[in-house]
Amino acid sequence: MAEKFLGENRMLKIKRALVSVYYKEGLLEFANVLRDFGVQIISTGGTYNFLKSNNIPVISISEITGFPEILDGRVKTLHPKIHAGLLAILDNSNHMKQIEELNIEPIDLVCINLYPFEETVKKEGIKDEEIIEQIDIGGPSMLRAAAKNYKYTAAISNPNQYKSFVEELRNNNGYVSEEYCRKLAKEVFRTTAYYDSIIFNYFDKNEIYQDFPEIFTIGFRKEFSLRYGENPHQKSALYGEFQKIFSILHGKELSYNNILDISSAVNLMLEFDTPAAIIVKHNNPCGVGLGDNIYSAYENALSTDPKSAFGGIIALNRPIDINTANKINEIFSEVIISPDFSNEVFEILKKKKDRRLIKFNIENYTKEKFQIRNVIGGYLVQDIDNKIITQNDLNIVTKRKPSDDEVKAMLFGWKVVKHVKSNAIVFSNSQKTLGIGAGQMSRVDSTKIAIMKAKEFGLDLTNSAVASDAFFPFADSILEAIKAGATAIIQPGGSIRDNEVINAANEHNVTMAFTGIRHFKH
Amino acid sequence: MAEKFLGENRMLKIKRALVSVYYKEGLLEFANVLRDFGVQIISTGGTYNFLKSNNIPVISISEITGFPEILDGRVKTLHPKIHAGLLAILDNSNHMKQIEELNIEPIDLVCINLYPFEETVKKEGIKDEEIIEQIDIGGPSMLRAAAKNYKYTAAISNPNQYKSFVEELRNNNGYVSEEYCRKLAKEVFRTTAYYDSIIFNYFDKNEIYQDFPEIFTIGFRKEFSLRYGENPHQKSALYGEFQKIFSILHGKELSYNNILDISSAVNLMLEFDTPAAIIVKHNNPCGVGLGDNIYSAYENALSTDPKSAFGGIIALNRPIDINTANKINEIFSEVIISPDFSNEVFEILKKKKDRRLIKFNIENYTKEKFQIRNVIGGYLVQDIDNKIITQNDLNIVTKRKPSDDEVKAMLFGWKVVKHVKSNAIVFSNSQKTLGIGAGQMSRVDSTKIAIMKAKEFGLDLTNSAVASDAFFPFADSILEAIKAGATAIIQPGGSIRDNEVINAANEHNVTMAFTGIRHFKH
Repeated sequence: MAEKFLGENRMLKIKRALVSVYYKEGLLEFANVLRDFGVQIISTGGTYNFLKSNNIPVISISEITGFPEILDGRVKTLHPKIHAGLLAILDNSNHMKQIEELNIEPIDLVCINLYPFEETVKKEGIKDEEIIEQIDIGGPSMLRAAAKNYKYTAAISNPNQYKSFVEELRNNNGYVSEEYCRKLAKEVFRTTAYYDSIIFNYFDKNEIYQDFPEIFTIGFRKEFSLRYGENPHQKSALYGEFQKIFSILHGKELSYNNILDISSAVNLMLEFDTPAAIIVKHNNPCGVGLGDNIYSAYENALSTDPKSAFGGIIALNRPIDINTANKINEIFSEVIISPDFSNEVFEILKKKKDRRLIKFNIENYTKEKFQIRNVIGGYLVQDIDNKIITQNDLNIVTKRKPSDDEVKAMLFGWKVVKHVKSNAIVFSNSQKTLGIGAGQMSRVDSTKIAIMKAKEFGLDLTNSAVASDAFFPFADSILEAIKAGATAIIQPGGSIRDNEVINAANEHNVTMAFTGIRHFKH
Repeated sequence: MAEKFLGENRMLKIKRALVSVYYKEGLLEFANVLRDFGVQIISTGGTYNFLKSNNIPVISISEITGFPEILDGRVKTLHPKIHAGLLAILDNSNHMKQIEELNIEPIDLVCINLYPFEETVKKEGIKDEEIIEQIDIGGPSMLRAAAKNYKYTAAISNPNQYKSFVEELRNNNGYVSEEYCRKLAKEVFRTTAYYDSIIFNYFDKNEIYQDFPEIFTIGFRKEFSLRYGENPHQKSALYGEFQKIFSILHGKELSYNNILDISSAVNLMLEFDTPAAIIVKHNNPCGVGLGDNIYSAYENALSTDPKSAFGGIIALNRPIDINTANKINEIFSEVIISPDFSNEVFEILKKKKDRRLIKFNIENYTKEKFQIRNVIGGYLVQDIDNKIITQNDLNIVTKRKPSDDEVKAMLFGWKVVKHVKSNAIVFSNSQKTLGIGAGQMSRVDSTKIAIMKAKEFGLDLTNSAVASDAFFPFADSILEAIKAGATAIIQPGGSIRDNEVINAANEHNVTMAFTGIRHFKH
């Protein structure tokens, strides 16, 4: 045991390894290297048989523990002869004395990968009992023990570490450095934290984070690295299961901003059951249209702001027909999202280079459970804003009651304004947005911008509806809107000056509905 | 063992418990209840001594295992006689036969809390060896084993579960339901996932998430629940260590939107070393001012848009003097942030009700490691945008070179525009913002809005600088800006029409700097 260390360099000689892996890929090669360095290999169950049948000398774990593998493999490595071998501090003479007396030898390396819980959960028709069986107990215990004792035990937790481990061994003639072992230890805790967060999700499935627990833990898997983040000097990656919901059928790789915009566009699209088209730019809708078919919906959406639509993200909730495809091709769009693309349409749309075609697989869509957002020093976690209102929820506060068409226009505007950055003002009729005022620090500015935009594209605001994401603090905004032609207003209400605002509406014979619901989005 | 189950109700009789806790609070009361129900208690080390000295009958774990506690307590519970007791499926006759032959008795309850790793890491001057020693190996192993086998073993992982467990026992005359045990199992995995994510952070400390690993795991602790989220119908909570950085000295509780705005305001404030004032509204700056002192800085910030400043968040990077406090009191502000408040200033500022006074503890501030953002089906993770440029980084692309004052104005505007939602246009001189155009779907609209805002408050744009967060796709925006009086332009450059834009600037004898850096913020 004296040769454990190469003096002050804190190098660890690998003499004895415990190998127990679920994935056998690359294992034989790795085990051969260990053998070449004279490492004694201890193993269990399937790994033992695999190594044995490949003529790698291997000792069964029961030989070490003197205890049988029991409970269908549930208990095999959870033994002090193993864990003391992993946890003994080799620099501590008491520890060394204790393990020698108990006839325990140190284990210098564990090489373990955990039962495939995550993969098992995803299998269709899988039974709870089978899932539960894939919760690994011994594996995390050994990995964590080795990682805690990283100065004296190396821990390989992933087959993708074989290569660097072999290099380390070869470069150091059978030793590994403490620094390297520390990195492996870090990976162990990353792995076990993730593993248990997935198990937690399994147990939590139908209960959501609504309880906002004292401790919050999430783990997710990388889908792909992005070329860069929101800006070219920021690095970024996408995690989760975006590609389960969105199939990237054509085009160059998605950017960070594409993905953000796709998500916003589709969230707005999901507000509508009838044919609807959404065009998003800089994470705000710049046009939303409904129609009897997807062509007229797209035409309506485009007409709100054909200038901003250039380079935008288009989301359509119906398969695209040839006419619509040709219409879309008239301007450049970065991304087109639809539930389906026929071969013919696909051929038309992919003519334009640099464009992405995305199939939205609604059958795989599930609403996010919660929204998480960084702030300095912490995270804000909140429920998703998924409040939906109907005509029955409208509280008409003015003398004049709205016509059917005004109700339709108000409810349409209300659905859109929820997805516009605050302060948000949306002018609309029942079929399309006419002017969108987004992201201003004052509500009256958002109103002015919406009017300015409508004028710019020759859209008449006469008899339009105005939707406001939060209450009007003063009458100024609605006076501007009324002057521009609006006759119906929808807003949460709740200002201390509500009376002033209602009076202004009444004076101009304008109808106004309170929703009681606010839709800030920042 | 026949009485383990109350028929089909899947109730579990608690006969034998393993109790090993770090926090002894509430334990004695709980142990007394267990004793009253005739539960046999097995225990280790400190818990054993505590129970013994309080006259609770207790069996030492070594009596069960026949193995000594060794390695200074590192190995005591990692024994098959314990783990088989936790993991045996009591409905499985083979399992029962195996454990009977080995003289192992089932354990129906574990009650464990883990070594205080998180608390230990936070201690000042703590040594690595002491931290490492607080990585619990046996505890998570037993909790996870019991949770896996939740149909046959209950697992208490937190003292706050004593109460409900006792109720469950009492309501069911010494039995607990499978449904209840499943809830406890869920909490186990929440706890172990969090515990290991904290250990991972410890190992990871200086390395950041720059590698965007295949699996990503974060855990955080709740600071406080919020009354509601971004909107009243959304529930929300704040997680992390926000309050380490921000001390809430006075005022009603912070809202979700307050916290978001505080974070944005302070991120912008941190761009400046000289006295600076920031006013934020709806997560965008509506005024930024510099000055020889904090009074003039605040005056400058306020003058940009005194209307939007109403109800805003003010961040000042210097202690507030009496004059500034009185000036601030002239309008209503929701939140005031400063590195310090003297008693006198505190008295002046807290006169206004419904206002929050927040001390920014810069000594505790550390830059966020990464930004995380929900999208449908996943998460976008990216580096923080913390690129800073200096005069040397400016590439002057026009014939006319900027004056010193123009350089100052451009660099000031550039710092601000980075924190304005895209598309962002900021008019400024070297001391204050003159017009801020935020969050538009087209760049020319942002330009128009910035000009409109400046006019509204009588701010002269003659000889002003214009900063744009991304390149100008056309010359239209800069022509608007020049018409309004701008003489210096700062932007990333990189458009295919850069020449057109440069020519337009040259034609009007305007100077323009390219930064090569984009600052989208959505």
